[in-house]
Amino acid sequence: MSSDLHEPLHAPDGALCPRFHKAVELIGRRWTGSIVRVLLGGPRRFNELLAAIPGISDRLLTERLRELEGEGLISREVASGSPVRVTYQLTCSGHELQEALDALGRWAERWISVSA
Amino acid sequence: MSSDLHEPLHAPDGALCPRFHKAVELIGRRWTGSIVRVLLGGPRRFNELLAAIPGISDRLLTERLRELEGEGLISREVASGSPVRVTYQLTCSGHELQEALDALGRWAERWISVSA
Repeated sequence: MSSDLHEPLHAPDGALCPRFHKAVELIGRRWTGSIVRVLLGGPRRFNELLAAIPGISDRLLTERLRELEGEGLISREVASGSPVRVTYQLTCSGHELQEALDALGRWAERWISVSA
Repeated sequence: MSSDLHEPLHAPDGALCPRFHKAVELIGRRWTGSIVRVLLGGPRRFNELLAAIPGISDRLLTERLRELEGEGLISREVASGSPVRVTYQLTCSGHELQEALDALGRWAERWISVSA
């Protein structure tokens, strides 16, 4: 049965496509989805990201930004001046995550409860 | 400013909605997204899940299934007989993750490369 073209997320034997697996773990890595979500609003400086994501630490934000840069989801722009101004922004692939994150956001609105 | 109704994913100060944060980490927890994705195809027995998800261990699958059950995303059905037959299936909230996971799958198709 050659249903691959119609079910591209699965290998022919019904196993999961490793690309899907990689994507879901990339996005779900602690804080990654939230960082991308904030950057969908436009470029941000480090401290703006830090303020927008409740609970993240300096160290973890630095680490995650480096990973996202390494994976090609964000780029870092350094504007000369004093002080040097560094901003982070989504690349093309990063921007295209919007659809998935929006859908997940709608799901969260509907199903996730948070304790006040 | 009461823009919450129109931008439900953000608190009024622009910070991320904690529900979104919780959802993205729930889905991204190692293997969770993949388990849900397999169950979108219908109820599965433990060994069927184990076979469909490359690389997951018995122990981790058990742990993740318990978590998903605790979070109300899947239910466990035990049919009497010998041997007892246990199947796992998505609840209503679990099923509704399909849209988000499909969108993420499309993104992965387009942007994620895997080494052969």
